[in-house]
Amino acid sequence: MSSPLESLRSAGLHSVGQLDRSFILDIVSRAARFKAEPRPEPSLTGVEIAMLFLENSTRTRISFEVAAARLGARAFNFDADASSLAKGETLKDTVETIASFGCDAMVVRSPSAGAPQLISGWIGRPVINAGDGAHQHPTQALADVFTIAEAHESRGDFGRLRVGIIGDIVNSRVARSLIDAFEILGSEVVLIGPKTLMPSLGNDAIVSTSDNLDDHLATLDIVYLLRVQRERIDQGLIPSIGEYVSRFALSRERFTRLRPSALVMHPGPVFPGMEVDSMVADGTSSVIRRQAANGVFVRMALLETVLGGLVK
Amino acid sequence: MSSPLESLRSAGLHSVGQLDRSFILDIVSRAARFKAEPRPEPSLTGVEIAMLFLENSTRTRISFEVAAARLGARAFNFDADASSLAKGETLKDTVETIASFGCDAMVVRSPSAGAPQLISGWIGRPVINAGDGAHQHPTQALADVFTIAEAHESRGDFGRLRVGIIGDIVNSRVARSLIDAFEILGSEVVLIGPKTLMPSLGNDAIVSTSDNLDDHLATLDIVYLLRVQRERIDQGLIPSIGEYVSRFALSRERFTRLRPSALVMHPGPVFPGMEVDSMVADGTSSVIRRQAANGVFVRMALLETVLGGLVK
Amino acid sequence: MSSPLESLRSAGLHSVGQLDRSFILDIVSRAARFKAEPRPEPSLTGVEIAMLFLENSTRTRISFEVAAARLGARAFNFDADASSLAKGETLKDTVETIASFGCDAMVVRSPSAGAPQLISGWIGRPVINAGDGAHQHPTQALADVFTIAEAHESRGDFGRLRVGIIGDIVNSRVARSLIDAFEILGSEVVLIGPKTLMPSLGNDAIVSTSDNLDDHLATLDIVYLLRVQRERIDQGLIPSIGEYVSRFALSRERFTRLRPSALVMHPGPVFPGMEVDSMVADGTSSVIRRQAANGVFVRMALLETVLGGLVK
Repeated sequence: MSSPLESLRSAGLHSVGQLDRSFILDIVSRAARFKAEPRPEPSLTGVEIAMLFLENSTRTRISFEVAAARLGARAFNFDADASSLAKGETLKDTVETIASFGCDAMVVRSPSAGAPQLISGWIGRPVINAGDGAHQHPTQALADVFTIAEAHESRGDFGRLRVGIIGDIVNSRVARSLIDAFEILGSEVVLIGPKTLMPSLGNDAIVSTSDNLDDHLATLDIVYLLRVQRERIDQGLIPSIGEYVSRFALSRERFTRLRPSALVMHPGPVFPGMEVDSMVADGTSSVIRRQAANGVFVRMALLETVLGGLVK
Repeated sequence: MSSPLESLRSAGLHSVGQLDRSFILDIVSRAARFKAEPRPEPSLTGVEIAMLFLENSTRTRISFEVAAARLGARAFNFDADASSLAKGETLKDTVETIASFGCDAMVVRSPSAGAPQLISGWIGRPVINAGDGAHQHPTQALADVFTIAEAHESRGDFGRLRVGIIGDIVNSRVARSLIDAFEILGSEVVLIGPKTLMPSLGNDAIVSTSDNLDDHLATLDIVYLLRVQRERIDQGLIPSIGEYVSRFALSRERFTRLRPSALVMHPGPVFPGMEVDSMVADGTSSVIRRQAANGVFVRMALLETVLGGLVK
Repeated sequence: MSSPLESLRSAGLHSVGQLDRSFILDIVSRAARFKAEPRPEPSLTGVEIAMLFLENSTRTRISFEVAAARLGARAFNFDADASSLAKGETLKDTVETIASFGCDAMVVRSPSAGAPQLISGWIGRPVINAGDGAHQHPTQALADVFTIAEAHESRGDFGRLRVGIIGDIVNSRVARSLIDAFEILGSEVVLIGPKTLMPSLGNDAIVSTSDNLDDHLATLDIVYLLRVQRERIDQGLIPSIGEYVSRFALSRERFTRLRPSALVMHPGPVFPGMEVDSMVADGTSSVIRRQAANGVFVRMALLETVLGGLVK
């Protein structure tokens, strides 16, 4: 089996499961160096990255664009709507045409699980997954791991951490990538949410599930709230917003029961009055904004790792 | 109270009222230098500017983009529709996420009066107002002042000028910024339009109002026509296009009654057959195209002034 | 009459008819050099190109953007929808405003035949036609000529070639540009398609027409399939997809009757099951992907030719 670095340089980053502990910690330490020196000498001058966003996500797209630009790479945007896909062209044809323009790598956001892997097979170049259906969002998880290493008092001793991931687990690509990352890093994970939004898990030593947030408040080091979309109500998976909020939202009252060192996290965007009280989201335990900021540094680290070998 | 330069470097440019005469004239002379040397040595290399356009305005956006690129700065575009705002995220959260990516300044176009000031308070970085509701559009006014300084025979002696601003004054952010600018520069301003489209003014020594354009044609040095939107008819504020045109459009006949040295101005885009006859708009007294061209140079001058201190 | 180079540098490239044989071959050989050295020392540093796409075409737009970026030029995008055109501004006003921002050239895609020529007249700067109505798409034809020179065993001996252009000829700007190019290069052209989709031609020595593809399969060196839009069925110009496919699609069976050296071409995007069998489109005789790739190199060659003189 190839090393994580070899697999990244040939195929790209599709899921956190490709990585190992030392690779993740290396990305974290490179990201930290970029944070200390956010506008470094460009190391990817002339490198070209095609951004194929088949789902709208301005924030993820711009985070990659900023990362690419700071390294001197050029990013080109292919949008979902503007592409010929809408007119019936196959994804394969679209992707191969884009690749034919000569990019060194592609960043892909897709509603379809597995699209990044499929695409890298088609084009024979590295593809970085910027979110694929309910499958994976690995750069979000890496940004989150970096943020925890930086902000939690455990200072990167992930084996000590108890992480609660709360909300719509079954539909969350962020949750899947986080579960993989914490498994690799040896943290304990508890998935908390309504049973209707919980995946069926195999036997796994480190992941447990619960439908009672209150049981866990006092023992969590990381309180990771996922977005819960209103569609879940229409789908009958949640009875009402009020019901969800009363059982799973991180209210001010629940916040008082957390450990003082606990970190409040959320991948954003935060919609008011759903997953987390806005004073809590803006409070000193919250690192939500820092997750977004760190996303740029992690993406710089990743792009440099994947593409660094290309520059003469 | 802080100087205009200090306030610009910390908070940005929200309204012309922040500026004083010497600052405006300094921007004008810097803009003139850029016009003589449009592609200077880049002075903002590595500087990052987030462009947040919550209203569509391709021309203003591109004008800023060109200005930023010529100085070596990088601009990143956040669009209204693409952002998570549409899904219910608060403006504050959107803006803070964008800021977390590390920009040095933001350029904001918003339908809400006061948004740029609010945003600069949130992010603690300079915000340049690219038009906020019916409040202000300061870079348009600076481009117009530069254009007058350059093109009118008074050669920057603004105290000699009589300026007519004609049209939908009450809904115009351009008018508000121009009134402030001409007040600072000591020009005489008369606001001309239907009473239904006129603001209620306090006691002001230099601004007067009129609903009769013909009374003023012979005495104006600057004939500044504002856009009048067809919605005003539906709102009952204008009886009909014909009625408006007959009383307030700069027709060819009215044009013949202007001073030979008078300049015809319009912030664009010009819609045919409404505010100004198209032969007049394209004629030698018109500086409409030059206003657009000068917008780039004024924005270069402003970006360099606000952000110049950042480059090592 | 001015030379092709003089006309390109002053007015831009509007149609293939402006060019002569030696100019086309020069573009092809420059494109080949860029293909060998795809990221050359930038020769257009500081040059500014306004991209005005009044029709959506992500692939053509990005192809020009990549070409411009590799030469060090800056491209700015003006979209159809975002522009003020939608609100009633005239095209002339839009274009002159864009030009006033200072671009050195414009790349224009328009639904209106003749728009690039009109626009270059208005702005007095070179305009490169990126497709105008059913008129011309010259950079596509140049990419195709380069691809044939590179991939066909005739190695650039165009006088030896018999080219079949198949499909909706009358509505195709690609066909018009190709016919011009092959006429200049001395190839023999046969236009093949339903009579309802065939143009009325003048007396022309080298172009013939046919409504029977099977008659020509054995003699074609180049099998150039055009896109056929489903609207043609609604318009009554084609009875049905099945009927069209049975008579004009390049099926696997028909493919077996081609010369071994024949090249299969298509300007893209290819919609499955219409003009060409997908195994044929992906087969070794197909150069469809290479046409797209070569589009970037031809556009680099063209931009450098048109704009190279501008850099100090």
